[in-house]
Amino acid sequence: MKRIGVLLSGCGVMDGSEINEAVLTLLAIDLAGAEAVCLAPDIPQHHVINHITGREMEEKRNVLVESARIARGEIHDLATIDTLDLDALILPGGYGAAKNLSDYAYKGSEMEVLPAVADAIRNFYTAGKPLGFICISPVIAARVLGSEQVEVTIGNDTTNAEAIEKFGATHVNCKVSNIHTSKEGKVLSTPAYMLGPTIGEVAKGIEKLVNAVVALA
Amino acid sequence: MKRIGVLLSGCGVMDGSEINEAVLTLLAIDLAGAEAVCLAPDIPQHHVINHITGREMEEKRNVLVESARIARGEIHDLATIDTLDLDALILPGGYGAAKNLSDYAYKGSEMEVLPAVADAIRNFYTAGKPLGFICISPVIAARVLGSEQVEVTIGNDTTNAEAIEKFGATHVNCKVSNIHTSKEGKVLSTPAYMLGPTIGEVAKGIEKLVNAVVALA
Repeated sequence: MKRIGVLLSGCGVMDGSEINEAVLTLLAIDLAGAEAVCLAPDIPQHHVINHITGREMEEKRNVLVESARIARGEIHDLATIDTLDLDALILPGGYGAAKNLSDYAYKGSEMEVLPAVADAIRNFYTAGKPLGFICISPVIAARVLGSEQVEVTIGNDTTNAEAIEKFGATHVNCKVSNIHTSKEGKVLSTPAYMLGPTIGEVAKGIEKLVNAVVALA
Repeated sequence: MKRIGVLLSGCGVMDGSEINEAVLTLLAIDLAGAEAVCLAPDIPQHHVINHITGREMEEKRNVLVESARIARGEIHDLATIDTLDLDALILPGGYGAAKNLSDYAYKGSEMEVLPAVADAIRNFYTAGKPLGFICISPVIAARVLGSEQVEVTIGNDTTNAEAIEKFGATHVNCKVSNIHTSKEGKVLSTPAYMLGPTIGEVAKGIEKLVNAVVALA
């Protein structure tokens, strides 16, 4: 059975992984006959957001511990990725990708990616293993892999597309129900909640992305 | 468009709503052409569990605030349910149903249900509006509606089935990919993660439950 890594960044769209995107990824992996292996870095969250008010709360939470909520406890520290024998890696979106896995939410085109995340993406890419990027996470792919041959989509948003191009990658517009496959490397992406608006539309794109990733793995 | 209430109890299987069940419910409602309206009580969580270790953490969290993570911020206080014009109500599972919406996790067959939850279920039942119960939440239906004519399933677990019968309701065994419809009233249930084991199987039962609830609404 193919083992597909799912790299989480917390639990909640405003300060962690977008929950719907993460669950739809796990569902599609199971329906594709593969095994999902959840991972997250063992680091503090950048901050904690009250998802009703959108305001910061005076709390400290850990990315690995909160991600375990989505994974029903079955999660691995990203530091162990080399021992997990994974065939592919998928990054759901949510602000956690831009606040915990990288600092894109604050630094935009000056962003840096968490070294363990950058290493994982580079290693999978070099090994010819497929990589799937959902929602805002393609900016991470662009920053790490940045070359004109690497094509990703975040939908049709100009600001994020410009950041992707500044990192040296190519941005391609895409509908929420579809995916884009880079002409170079096994790099796939889908806009998900960058476009939305409904979970049913988001699910179509994620299912296509997962099926393509599993087929290439 | 039919408006289907989804009553959440936090965010995470061990101390709140089971996240997969909640998201699969939201997905199925959207695919059925209805509108999901998320609700939760504005009360403290019974406790906070580290989902890696299974141990209690020294934190305080609020059920409504944490449930908003699943709802992407779009959530209503359960206290406002009378003004929301809902056509049906669905309760996903997770220990939150047995720790926050009721005290079943601690008191078993002596349990009490949060009055606002009991009122909502009783009112929907009396009004002939469909009610959907997932995973462990059918024990709440049994406690509130308890009569032999009300049939629910939690899969095939003897202890929970005995509690349901003690409340005066009837327990019916059911497969994870299926649902049971009570012969009396529009009360539907599916075992979900009471049986599992995979998200794909759980999704089949939840999709059937939601489709039936929406059709009856």
